[in-house]
Amino acid sequence: MQTPERPRLRARGESVAVRVEFTDLHPETSTYLGQAAYLQLSVFEMLAAIGSRIDDLVYSPDVALAAAVALRKHEAITAEIRRREEDPAVAMAEPRDAVRVFRSQTAGETVEESALSVYVTAGLLDDLFLGLASSLPSDISRRVTAILAEDNRRDVLRQYLQSRIHETPSVASGLALWGRRLVGDTLLLAHSVVPDENGATEERIEPVFTELIAAHTRRMDSLGLTA
Amino acid sequence: MQTPERPRLRARGESVAVRVEFTDLHPETSTYLGQAAYLQLSVFEMLAAIGSRIDDLVYSPDVALAAAVALRKHEAITAEIRRREEDPAVAMAEPRDAVRVFRSQTAGETVEESALSVYVTAGLLDDLFLGLASSLPSDISRRVTAILAEDNRRDVLRQYLQSRIHETPSVASGLALWGRRLVGDTLLLAHSVVPDENGATEERIEPVFTELIAAHTRRMDSLGLTA
Repeated sequence: MQTPERPRLRARGESVAVRVEFTDLHPETSTYLGQAAYLQLSVFEMLAAIGSRIDDLVYSPDVALAAAVALRKHEAITAEIRRREEDPAVAMAEPRDAVRVFRSQTAGETVEESALSVYVTAGLLDDLFLGLASSLPSDISRRVTAILAEDNRRDVLRQYLQSRIHETPSVASGLALWGRRLVGDTLLLAHSVVPDENGATEERIEPVFTELIAAHTRRMDSLGLTA
Repeated sequence: MQTPERPRLRARGESVAVRVEFTDLHPETSTYLGQAAYLQLSVFEMLAAIGSRIDDLVYSPDVALAAAVALRKHEAITAEIRRREEDPAVAMAEPRDAVRVFRSQTAGETVEESALSVYVTAGLLDDLFLGLASSLPSDISRRVTAILAEDNRRDVLRQYLQSRIHETPSVASGLALWGRRLVGDTLLLAHSVVPDENGATEERIEPVFTELIAAHTRRMDSLGLTA
């Protein structure tokens, strides 16, 4: 199957909801679940830290709520790992080092950079994992898709960044540049996640990344930033 | 009423569940709710940060879950603030500076110090706020008591600290010292929270603090540390 399924782009208000399906890639279930669980835990940690650093009490509690959503997803995925009689701590240990390096590369200096980081990188990785979920065995695919499809509540990051750009328009160009660096680092991590042992050749992988980048561009557009 | 109501000490397994009631102190409802909401948000932030710093994936997700409990309490209290047609961001702005100073004083250097900090300071402040809740107007008192009485899930901090002390017994004396400093700083903050405009004299306040310290001692005991 050389022609990839068309992505489903669904705009909801001003927020960015993108659904990409990769029916052609077959992730190894245990590896996938460990990666997905650890990524959601990381998103929780990053959002909680950003919420702590945002001074404005109009935004910081909602960033904390977005963190809690990621933690709920983490919990639901670890429940899937336990259902397979595997140990979540063991499953999450495997992807940890790679994710940690990635987090240090994409941490950002200012709160705005960190907020853009999570908005962009977690957005792209969520798209990837939601897409890969469609290739899991059907039962688990259905449940994991339901978990990951839940609204991530990260639209507050977009609102926060827009308000910051509105207040200080000069931050926009630096953030656009930062966003371009983020997408490069994130695509590298995404490449390491996509399975290659089941015959996922460059030809199969390329359209997937084209869709991920299209969704990323939409997210940057929603901020008024050039991707 | 010079004789304070006896505290209710309820041990549940090895965890420390203490309930102190202060029917004699009458906090101003709006002030109380703003303080309680901001404190729970702070506990969320501190626990999320500690979870991020704990390397062991056996503990860190459970610390994150404890953070999520604090955030749920924060949300439930902000719902009470909105019910009174007040703005949570405004209500929380008032206690923020004092809590921030307190947080920087009690942050700790090592992960163990930070974990002990939240275990001890949030434990003491939760006792205080749960106690004060009994003096709120009856409807709101009942709801806030139900919110704050929910298991805080922080027993994972005790488990983590015990395992660290077990691995490296030499950390215990430093932690005991740190615990003594923490209780001093926390009692200072607690004093600033207890209302004085409604005739809460030293005589009335003293037994309250005696109970808070007794509960604190129990928590330190549960860690095998001298209070």
